[in-house]
Parts: sequence; structure tokens; C-alpha cells
Amino acid sequence: MSALARTAPLPRLNGQRLWNSLMDLARLGATPKGGVCRLALTELDRQGRDLVTGWLREAGCAIRVDPIGNVFAIRPGRRGTGLDGDGPRARPTTDPTQWPVAVGSHIDTQPTGGRFDGNYGVLAGLEVLRSLNDAGLVTERPLCVAIWTNEEGTRFTPVMMGSGVYAQAFTLDHCLAQTDREGISVAQALRGIGYAGEATPPRFAAYFEPHIEQGPILEAERITIGAVEGALGQRWFDATLTGQDAHAGPTPLPMRRDALLAASHLVQAVRHIAETSPDYARGTVGQLFVHPNSRNVIPGRVELTIDLRNAKAETLSRMVDALHEAARRIAAAERVEIDLREVVHFPPCAFDPTLVADIERHAADLGHPVQRIASGAGHDAVYVARTCPTAMIFVPCEGGISHNEIENAQPADLAAGAEVLLRSVLDAAAR
Amino acid sequence: MSALARTAPLPRLNGQRLWNSLMDLARLGATPKGGVCRLALTELDRQGRDLVTGWLREAGCAIRVDPIGNVFAIRPGRRGTGLDGDGPRARPTTDPTQWPVAVGSHIDTQPTGGRFDGNYGVLAGLEVLRSLNDAGLVTERPLCVAIWTNEEGTRFTPVMMGSGVYAQAFTLDHCLAQTDREGISVAQALRGIGYAGEATPPRFAAYFEPHIEQGPILEAERITIGAVEGALGQRWFDATLTGQDAHAGPTPLPMRRDALLAASHLVQAVRHIAETSPDYARGTVGQLFVHPNSRNVIPGRVELTIDLRNAKAETLSRMVDALHEAARRIAAAERVEIDLREVVHFPPCAFDPTLVADIERHAADLGHPVQRIASGAGHDAVYVARTCPTAMIFVPCEGGISHNEIENAQPADLAAGAEVLLRSVLDAAAR
Repeated sequence: MSALARTAPLPRLNGQRLWNSLMDLARLGATPKGGVCRLALTELDRQGRDLVTGWLREAGCAIRVDPIGNVFAIRPGRRGTGLDGDGPRARPTTDPTQWPVAVGSHIDTQPTGGRFDGNYGVLAGLEVLRSLNDAGLVTERPLCVAIWTNEEGTRFTPVMMGSGVYAQAFTLDHCLAQTDREGISVAQALRGIGYAGEATPPRFAAYFEPHIEQGPILEAERITIGAVEGALGQRWFDATLTGQDAHAGPTPLPMRRDALLAASHLVQAVRHIAETSPDYARGTVGQLFVHPNSRNVIPGRVELTIDLRNAKAETLSRMVDALHEAARRIAAAERVEIDLREVVHFPPCAFDPTLVADIERHAADLGHPVQRIASGAGHDAVYVARTCPTAMIFVPCEGGISHNEIENAQPADLAAGAEVLLRSVLDAAAR
Repeated sequence: MSALARTAPLPRLNGQRLWNSLMDLARLGATPKGGVCRLALTELDRQGRDLVTGWLREAGCAIRVDPIGNVFAIRPGRRGTGLDGDGPRARPTTDPTQWPVAVGSHIDTQPTGGRFDGNYGVLAGLEVLRSLNDAGLVTERPLCVAIWTNEEGTRFTPVMMGSGVYAQAFTLDHCLAQTDREGISVAQALRGIGYAGEATPPRFAAYFEPHIEQGPILEAERITIGAVEGALGQRWFDATLTGQDAHAGPTPLPMRRDALLAASHLVQAVRHIAETSPDYARGTVGQLFVHPNSRNVIPGRVELTIDLRNAKAETLSRMVDALHEAARRIAAAERVEIDLREVVHFPPCAFDPTLVADIERHAADLGHPVQRIASGAGHDAVYVARTCPTAMIFVPCEGGISHNEIENAQPADLAAGAEVLLRSVLDAAAR
């Protein structure tokens, strides 16, 4: 079956058209500093959705919207349309040989977001369809471009809401009831922008999510394609260190119970634990508050956050053990109390080895420097991976900077990622 | 001349009367938690000043107020009244043999202050006069009780304003022009409470300031009297550490420029510098701010304060050198920039060896455990010491806690300090 893709001339991907689409979409919510502010389920999000679904419709897709507002744009394949029946009431096929191969991501942004985060994944999927149309190619399986609702989670929590509902990480009702700061619920906001759908979402044969790396590795190592092996698991903690505040002048050093001095040891312990752990280990203290935070008062209390990440659950668990051990040691040495409370436990996600190998091979065939990499951040793909074989394709972003208006990526890199995507999709759609 | 004090029966100090005066004064501005809020130059400060000057007048003193509102209550001695001439226009004597021996402190408090900080020094001075009256004793030199304006500096800066003007650390005009948050100037506030005086302040032959320790040493070591050798010099710095903020997930450890990790090393360096320095060395980081202070973002910038103290200027200077060296080393190792800016430089102050020895001797004679100690905090005595032989007497305070409504001290310890004060004043007044 894959013989088709291999013997037929491969369609050419139009990198300039992909770039133009990205720039057109970036106009909706454009900020003066060159970024984008297009929060989930706002009027601007509606405009973005309307623009992209219009393009997808023109590319020959049937547009279906599910109750959490996820958009599924389906291009029929030789084996069928992916649906049993016609019209909006048609249900996705239950025949696994007809499940579509999907490409997706999100088009909502951070308040001071960039032009590529999320948008690239969706529009690379669109460009794959347009390139196939240019070449007059129909794949065996249907293809699907998915736009997931509210990945960023800045207006409504939880983050990755649409893909999370799709993968049953959250219930639909729970998410529909979430409210923003004005008290508007997700259900109201979805109705307000006309994206409260009724469609049952399709099952996928495979799912690809191209994305800018949002980290510095590919750029620093002059690699064009990251074949993402998986996403790091995350375990987050709130720590409270309680000593005794006292005057900085009259209190001799041996009598102090300095919560900030203890915190300084904990900050270094978190770093040390990550440095001495394998499997893409990360450890970060990002937030820290001092009390009473006065120039000449020994700090009596410090609150800080700890973010541990690792590609393997067992290694992550050993990092957590080491954190508790370090906290006990520091508490005893500095005569403070340290309370550690776990607030997030998100398991590691391994992507599909076959798809990852496909991506690696196609990148090499195309002459692009490629390397295996882990995703340190969460993505819709992490939830979708619970339902089907999944992989991500990373391309470099300037300075590793994302969630920022100066987020930037090179047109050639974005085109390279889409080209690797196209070939990988063709392989998967022929299986 | 000192034969008088030694051969005559020593007057008995009335510890219960001292305690009652402290409790009476503490009613003005009393807080529900047992503390006092009586900010400088407020209506409550006026009530406090009126109450205490009334007691001093009853004890036989002439009350004189200078232009910054410092109160000088003078009890005549055998050698004279301490004044050339009579009435409010009388000028302090220029004859050094007639300069009074003074006892003083302040009666303004912190917003959540205690009953003893400052008040004890003033009322111990009052109790010395009352005890001499009870015994019908007149000293050779005049005696003076001084109430210094705005020691706490919470409503108006600078701190230790009245004694600073007295010692010419600040100009009168500069201080009169300072304003509070409502825009009311010191000059207006002084007129408002009727304490904008015109008197020229007297020179002193000696100055004593009894005070609660505001630290934990005496209580922990079961010592009743601290013979204060001097006050620590203070050098304060603002440090800004600049790295690069980045996502906690995608950014590998070796590529990070984590300002908080660098700050953790600086916090420990400050402690290490103090621990390895002699002469009552202290080192404290009391204030720290993280930017952007987000749970999953590597901190790009940290601002923190550094407070170094030492009894000797040369040692303090070596501590500052070590701080700069540590900052350079940490900046290079963590690839961050560290900017250190000195914001306060207050030199160490050595008290008068004769007076310190007097205090130590009298405490021992009275059977009170005594030890030499340094004042880690600033006091009016530090400025007054620039003008005359000066010493302080410390008594224990509960848990070393001060600037707090739960500040507490034992009546017996307060009486012991006043008894040592009485004998030391008699010695000095006989010289």
C-alpha cells in the first residue's frame, strides 16, 4: 500500500504559501511589538478559526466541530470519508482501516504570544493538504487537520483543554463550566463565537504535531529537525520554609533560623538533583517569595515552587525521592521547617517509535540535520498520544524564545518541517 | 569629688515605680495585641511627650525643646543649672565642668512596636532622678534626661533624626523639610503637636542610653546586664543579578543563565563572609525579588539586598572586598551579570571605655551577671557618641524579639539595668 507514495513523484511543498498563511493569521490580534494576542474563545479567536476553517474548506475538507469547540477538517481518502453517513449528524467510522491520519495543534495564543506557537502545526497541516491538491494526490486513509481549543490556558484553565477532553483527561462538563475572570463560562464563550459543535470527534490512525521547539537546543546545535521522542513528565511542588524572623543587626549567626539561607540550599539541591539525573532531567525553582522581605530583617518564611521534569517515570520518581531527602537534610542543618506539597503530577509521554523513526529518516533523506529530542513543555500531542500513535516534529526558534512577542522562526526551517511532515503523513496514510 | 557618691548611702531605685511608668506610657497608642503604635510627631506622640515631660517637671527639671523637637529635661547640680541665665532664652553653659550627665532615648514607636524599645531608656532616666529626689541627693554636675525625636523613622526618614541633628549628622533644614506619605512636613508636624522649640541643645559631659537588647544573646546566656562596647558599622548593598528568563521545560541545564541559582550562591557567600570574619560580624540577605517569578520560567532577574555589619571599620571593609570578589566569581560561574551598589555606609561606633568599665563594675558589684556586647542595631547613642563620652546598658528581652507587639522584658531585669545606670550616672556626675 505504501508503494503508491514511494513510486509516485512526491508532491512539492510550497514553503512560501505556508509562510504567507502564517503571516495572514498573525494579523488577527497582532501586537505592536510583532507578536499576537488571540486568547481562546474571544472574538479574535473566532476570526482566526473562521479564516483557517475557510482555507481548509477551500482545500476540500468537511469541517466538523465537537462540543468543546475542537475543529476536525477531514479530507476523504481512497478508503472513505472517515464518516458513516453524510451531513453534520454523520458519525466517525468505527472501521480502523478508515481512521484518518491527523495533523494538528492550536491557534489560541498567550496574551503576549508569538506568531508560530500552535499556529505552525495547524497551518503546516493545511499546507500538506494544499500540496496534495496541487499534485492531485489522494491518500489511502482520509487526512484530518485538528484545531484544539484553548491550549494555552490563560483565559480558561485547564491548559490543553480541547485535547484533554478529546483524550478524556478531563470531562466535557467540567471544562464547559470553567469561567474566566469576568465570570463567563467556556460554554457561553463557545456559543458566543459559534463554535459550540455537536460532532463526535474521529479516532485517528496516527497524529502528528509540528511545532517550534520553544527551547534553544536545535538552534544552538544547528539542527533543522527535532524528531521528538516524547514529552517530559512533570512533578511540581510548593515548598514553604519556616524559620524565625529577627533583626539582622542584633542576632548572632549561630542563633539564626534564616528561611532564605535554607531556601538557597534548596534551590541548589533542585539543580543538583537534575544535573545528576539521566533521561532529559530538568529542575527549576521559578517562583520565590520572602517574608517579611525587609532589608534588615532575617527572613522568617520563604515560599517557593519546584518544577521537576524527566522523560522516564522511574527516574522522575527517584528525583522526587532525592528532593524529599534534600529537604529533610536542609531543614535539620538550618533549623527550619520545610513543607513540600505536590501540586502537579503529569506522567512522561513516549511518542510512537515507528513515527519518530519515519520523521528521522525523511529528514535525513531531505538532507536536513536531524536529532532526537524530548519536549520539555506540554503540547496537545501529549494528550492525543493517549489515543493513537503520535509524534511531534520540532523546528528551531530564534534564541529558544517563545510565549513572547519576539518569538521568531526562519521560513526555511518551517518549510523543512512541513516537508518532513508531508512525507511522514504519506507513509502513515498508506498503512 | 566622687567621694560623695561612694561614702553617702546609695539611693535605692524603685523598680516598681519604673515599671508603672512604663505601663502608663504604654497605654498611649496601646494595640490589642499588647504592643504600642505611637508614631513620631502624631497626636499620640504629643500625649506621650506631655505625660513624660510632666513627670520630669514634677521631678524638678527645667524642660527645654530644640528646633527638631528634642526634649532636654535638666536637673540642676551643685555646680550649676547647666544654663547661662534664666528662662526659655537661657543658653547652655559653655563651661565644661557644668555640662550635665545625660540619660536618654526615644518614645516614638514602630507601627507594630512594643512597650520597651526607647521608652525604657527615657523612663530609666526619670527613675534615676526620682530616686535621687527620694534620697535628697544633689549631684555635682547637672543631670539631663533627653527624649530624641523620631528615632524609628517609620513616618519620616531619616531614622534617628533628632539625635542625628544634635550630632550634626544631618542639617536641621533637611530634616524639617522631610514629608510623610500625606505630604505633611516635619516642621508642620512639630508645630502641630507644640514641640517646635527654640532652645539651643546642651553639650553633655557623658551620655547613657539603657535599652532592651533587641537580640537574643543575653537571654540565651542568662546574662542580666550587657555592657555595650559599641555599635556595629553597617554597609548595605543592592544587588541585581541578570541572567536570561526561559521556559523551565525545554531549556537544558547547561544552557541556562538562572538568576535565582546565582542568587542562591550569593546568599550563601554573604553568610560565609560573616561566619569567617571576626569582630561581631553579621551578614544578611533580607529582601529578594524574582522576575518574572513564574512557576515554570527560569528566573531572568533577581534583586536582593545585602546587609553587612562589623564592630571594626577595617574588618567591615575586608568583608566588602570579599563580597565583591564573591559576586565576580558567581557571575562568571553562572554566566549572569551581578551589579552591586552600596546604599548605606554607616561607620562602626566605639563607646567610651571608662563608662563601659563603670557599667561592668557596677553590675558585678550589684551581683548581676554581666557581659560585654556589641549593639547590632542603630541607636540614638551612636550619634550622641560623636559629641561626648557615651555608653549603653542592655537588658534582656524575651526571645530577642523587638519591633513587634509581643516585645517583652522582665521587671527585675529592667530594674537591674536602671540600678546600674544610677550608679554609673553618679560616678560620671561626680567627675
